[in-house]
Amino acid sequence: MYFVTGNRFKFLEVEKLFREINVVLRQFSVRLVEPQGDLEFIAEYKLKQAYSLLRKPVVVEDAGLFIEALNGFPGPYSKFVLETIGNEGVLKLMEGVVDRRAFFKAVVGFYDGEVLKLFEGVVYGEIAEEKRGSGGFGFDPIFIPEGYAETFAENYELKKKVSHRYRAFMKLIEWLKTTYNIL
Amino acid sequence: MYFVTGNRFKFLEVEKLFREINVVLRQFSVRLVEPQGDLEFIAEYKLKQAYSLLRKPVVVEDAGLFIEALNGFPGPYSKFVLETIGNEGVLKLMEGVVDRRAFFKAVVGFYDGEVLKLFEGVVYGEIAEEKRGSGGFGFDPIFIPEGYAETFAENYELKKKVSHRYRAFMKLIEWLKTTYNIL
Repeated sequence: MYFVTGNRFKFLEVEKLFREINVVLRQFSVRLVEPQGDLEFIAEYKLKQAYSLLRKPVVVEDAGLFIEALNGFPGPYSKFVLETIGNEGVLKLMEGVVDRRAFFKAVVGFYDGEVLKLFEGVVYGEIAEEKRGSGGFGFDPIFIPEGYAETFAENYELKKKVSHRYRAFMKLIEWLKTTYNIL
Repeated sequence: MYFVTGNRFKFLEVEKLFREINVVLRQFSVRLVEPQGDLEFIAEYKLKQAYSLLRKPVVVEDAGLFIEALNGFPGPYSKFVLETIGNEGVLKLMEGVVDRRAFFKAVVGFYDGEVLKLFEGVVYGEIAEEKRGSGGFGFDPIFIPEGYAETFAENYELKKKVSHRYRAFMKLIEWLKTTYNIL
C-alpha cells in the first residue's frame, strides 16, 4: 500500500501502525495537484490522481490547524502559512487574544480504484503563548493538546499517540482489519 | 468571450476595457477547481477546465497581494485570508514592521482551445498603517500604490487605471488587437 506524501515526518509517524497489521506501507513522493478547498475535497481529489498514477491501493492524508479566534485560520493552508509567516506570525496574530482554542484535523483517504473511504481525526487543544520544544514539525511547537501541559513539540511521543493523524489512521486501520481483503 | 469569475467586482473593473475594442465580455460564474500553487499554475489549470465546460474563448484571472516582510504572504490565498483573519489580521502581522513594501500581482489567462496565453500585471506599493477608504474590495483599504498617498479603497477610480488587474488585462487586449482574429 502506498502513502502518497512528500512529508517524511508524516510517513514515519504512521508507518509503524501498518506494520502492526502486517501491511507494508511505502512512501510514494510525487507532487499531486492540491486543490483549494476543505480537507475532504483535497483528499478525494488527491486520491484519484494518485491512483491513476500508481494503479495500486493508495493512502493520502491532509491536515490543518484551525484556530477558533481566527475563524479557522490557517486551516488547510498550513504549509504555505508555515513557509511565509511561520509560527511567529501565528503567535503574533494571537497576541492579546484570550480565547486560544484550536484543533488539528486530519483527513485520511483510501482508494483502491473501487472503494474510496475517508477517515477523520481531530485533537482539541490551545495555542501556546510562545514556541516550546524541538520535536515534531509544523505547528507542533505552539499546540498544547487538551488535558496536557506540554506542546506537541515538547512531547513528540505523546503526539504520536493522541494526534489527529494518529486517530484518523487508526480508523483506517480498523476498517482495513474488518473489511478489506488484503489482510 | 467569457470571463470566468465569481467575483462581480473583478468583472466590472475590466468589462469596459473590452467594450472599447468592441468585444462583448460576459461573466460566467461557475465554481472551478482552484489548485494550490502559484498564480500562473492556477490560471492555466482554470483555463483548461473553463474551456472544457464552455467550448468558447475563455478568460480567467487570479491575483494576490505579496508582502515582502511576510515572505509573500498572503499571496495566492487572498480569499481565504480575507475570510479568516481579514485586513485586521494582516495589519496586526505588520505591527512594528518598518519594511512595508508589497505588490499586487494579477495573472490573466486566455484560452480558445488552441492558443493559451498568460499576461502578468504588477503594481508596487506599501501596506498602510490602518484601514482607509470604502471603495474597492479585498485588500484595497490597506494598499497604497507607489507614488500616491491614498489607498486603493480611498481612490477606487485610480485603482481601475493603475492596478495589477488593469495592467494584465491591457496586455491581453493589446494582444487581442494585434493577433487574435475575433476583432
